[in-house]
Formats: sequence, structure tokens, C-alpha cells
Amino acid sequence: MANPTAAMLVIGDEILSGRTRDANMYFLAGELTKHGIDLKEVRIVSDDEAAIIAAVTSLSDSFDHVFTSGGIGPTHDDITADCISKAFDVHLDVRDDARALLQAHYDKSGQELNAARLRMARIPDGATLIDNPVSTAPGFTLRNVHVMAGVPSVFQAMVASVLPTLTGGAPLLSQTLRVERGEGDIAPILTAVAEAFDDLSIGCYPFQHNGAFGANVVVRGADGARVDAAMTQLARDLGL
Amino acid sequence: MANPTAAMLVIGDEILSGRTRDANMYFLAGELTKHGIDLKEVRIVSDDEAAIIAAVTSLSDSFDHVFTSGGIGPTHDDITADCISKAFDVHLDVRDDARALLQAHYDKSGQELNAARLRMARIPDGATLIDNPVSTAPGFTLRNVHVMAGVPSVFQAMVASVLPTLTGGAPLLSQTLRVERGEGDIAPILTAVAEAFDDLSIGCYPFQHNGAFGANVVVRGADGARVDAAMTQLARDLGL
Repeated sequence: MANPTAAMLVIGDEILSGRTRDANMYFLAGELTKHGIDLKEVRIVSDDEAAIIAAVTSLSDSFDHVFTSGGIGPTHDDITADCISKAFDVHLDVRDDARALLQAHYDKSGQELNAARLRMARIPDGATLIDNPVSTAPGFTLRNVHVMAGVPSVFQAMVASVLPTLTGGAPLLSQTLRVERGEGDIAPILTAVAEAFDDLSIGCYPFQHNGAFGANVVVRGADGARVDAAMTQLARDLGL
Repeated sequence: MANPTAAMLVIGDEILSGRTRDANMYFLAGELTKHGIDLKEVRIVSDDEAAIIAAVTSLSDSFDHVFTSGGIGPTHDDITADCISKAFDVHLDVRDDARALLQAHYDKSGQELNAARLRMARIPDGATLIDNPVSTAPGFTLRNVHVMAGVPSVFQAMVASVLPTLTGGAPLLSQTLRVERGEGDIAPILTAVAEAFDDLSIGCYPFQHNGAFGANVVVRGADGARVDAAMTQLARDLGL
């Protein structure tokens, strides 16, 4: 059976302007691979209602799971919950369970649960909360969309809360062969292996190191014995 | 006048599998911002023909420019040129100008221009070549799509070749205020400034440092005097 599929939606002007380098995509990609869920697409959009709604709707229709990061804090530019609610035509308001979590958190730290912070208790009807052991304000899952924070430590904690609840497939195994020759030299051999092992993915990722060209050849698949066999043939045909 | 808009399409299984951390997006975002072109969306898709064609078509229709990275090398998994040609229904074949560049390059290094390397001379009809001072094999521009390599040093050289040919707008200016208070505390002040300066973008990016919460408040806009005025009001209202 094929693995479940997933997409990620990163919400944030700060990445598109080049101010911040995204860290969450790289983390999620690795975690999903380990869990046997195939990440098929990532989109990054700005803090713009129409863009977020269009992306969520399209990705939710096309993939088994959608993971979002960003835009669920207390400030005016945090509009993700509003957009998800609109995308699915679901009511959004402060929900008692989320408010109770935040009230207890701010009581403990002696801070006020003001109107801005109360925004983080707004949860769409029918959504399930995602636990946030780092800073309390929860994420949520609505249908197949998992809505999480953009701060990397919080995002990672939320992924750890959500992933065990999802059915994974066979983890994708991969082996890498580093070849100190140009891609153009080894291309015919790769093509032959890719044709002989059409159940596997054979990728070739060129690099330059100290002025010399080389490539990492990566063989990926769910069946370890087949990956081993392809690597053996590759090494033999490349004379390694 | 509004700045030109752009999208980026990253093509590569290696990023979706978590094997590689993308570097090109961060680079391009910074260069476009300096050049006054607004990066509005990024998509990352796998080495899959249908996914690439769908993304190119959609982004080309929606934005003034599309920049792609990846999938133009000599190996079997390099299918970007094929997909761009199909997306625009344009003929693709080895083109004399691109072949001459490669022939001269491999003659000089004493390597053979074999069938695999000749794949890199396949250019869609009507496309303009993009200069590659690093490793010769050219990128190309077809309509509003700029097709570039995935290897970061080559990608960066191609961006440097293309950007001066594009009309930019007013570079986006930004100033950042680091605030050692939680987002929830400062949110009402940010909202007031965002309303008073609705021609600017006011972003709030929370962080945790040594267990304390803080936020970077970023004011962006094309008019430096307005950005200054917003920063002055922010600093005053935050008591800084």
C-alpha cells in the first residue's frame, strides 16, 4: 500500500522577504520521512488572507495531510486561524478548553490574559487541540489540516504531539554513494540502474568541492533488500 | 506603482525527503528584495512531471516572474526543461548555441560531450539563454519563467546574470526593533501602529532566548521616511 501523502504550508512574510531562513520545513521533512508519510509539496505564502485560504484549500484537497506553520500568535498579523476557519466555512471563537489552558498558564506566571493573548484561544468549531508543552498556546487539527506555531521550538514540540496520532506507512529508507566524478560521466549508469529498479527512486545531487565536480547518488525505497541490491549494482558499474 | 511580483519553484526530491536543506530560496528572497521585486510565493515539488507542470502553469499565470531551481543537469531525474516545454506547448531539442557553449567547455577540459551532457543543451524554442559562468551549461528564460540550476554556486551565478535584465521597483526597506517582552504584551501597541501606518507592513516575530520571551518587530515599506516615523512611534509607545 502506498504511504500517506502530505503537504506543508509555511505562512510568513519574514521568509519571503529573505529576513529569516526557514527551519521548520527541514525539520518536518525529516520527521515525516521517518514516520512513513511522503511529503509531496511545500508552499510558502505571505500573511495574506486570500493567499492562505487558496493554498489551504488546494493542499487539503490534494493530500492526506497538511501541516501549517506560523501565524497563530497574539498579534494583528497572526491570521492563520481566521483563514483556516474561512477555508472550511467553520465558526471561530474563543473556546473554553483553550482559554482554560491559557488562564492557568498566565496565572502561574503572574501575567494577564489580555485581549491579545485571548486571541490564541480562538479555535475553529470541531477542531482538536494540539498540545504545546513549550509555551501552552495550543495548535489545532481541523479535518486533515494540522495548524502549528512558527517558532521552531514550539513547532517541533507540536509535531511531536501530532505525529504519533497519525497512521504512517513504511519509512522511506535511503543510502547514499558519494562519487568523485561529474554527473555527465555517470549519467548512463544511473539511467540503467533506475530502469532496472523502477520501484526505487534514484536521485543524483551534484556538488563542487575544491573546484572538482562530484555527485551524491541517493537510492530511496521502502524495501531495504532492493535498496541494497541497487547500491551493489551502482558500485559495481561505477567501478567503486 | 506597485513593485513587480515573483514566485519561486524549487524542484527536488532531496529537499522534500529532508536530505538537503534548501539554500537557494533564502538567497533569492534577499536578492529580489534588494531589486524591488516582491517574492509572493514559493513552492517546492518533487521530480514529478505532472507536479512541475501544474506548478509552473499556475505560478506563471499568477505572478510577473517565476524563478525555478533544480532539475537541469545531465541525469535521468533532470526533467525540468521537458516540463517547462510541455507547460507552454513549445518544442524542445538540442539547440546550436547551447551545444556550442558545451562543446567549447568540454574540449577545453578534455572531456567528452556525451549524450548525457548533451541533454543540457536542450533548450525550448523561443527561450533566451541564461549565462552560467561557473560550469557553462546554461539556464534559460521562457516567457516569464527563469529556469536555473539547483547547485547553489551555479544558481547564484545565474541569478546574478538574470536580475540586471529585469525591471525592479522600489527596494523594500526594513527596520527591526528587538523587544524583550512577550508578544502578548506588546500586541495592542503593534495593532495601533499598523492601523496608523497602513501603507507599511508591521510584522512581529517571537523568539525565546535563555528561557525569556521576546519579539523582533519588523517595519517594512518602500518609503524610508514613513518607516522611520513608524519606528519612532513604536519605540515611544513601547517605552524604549
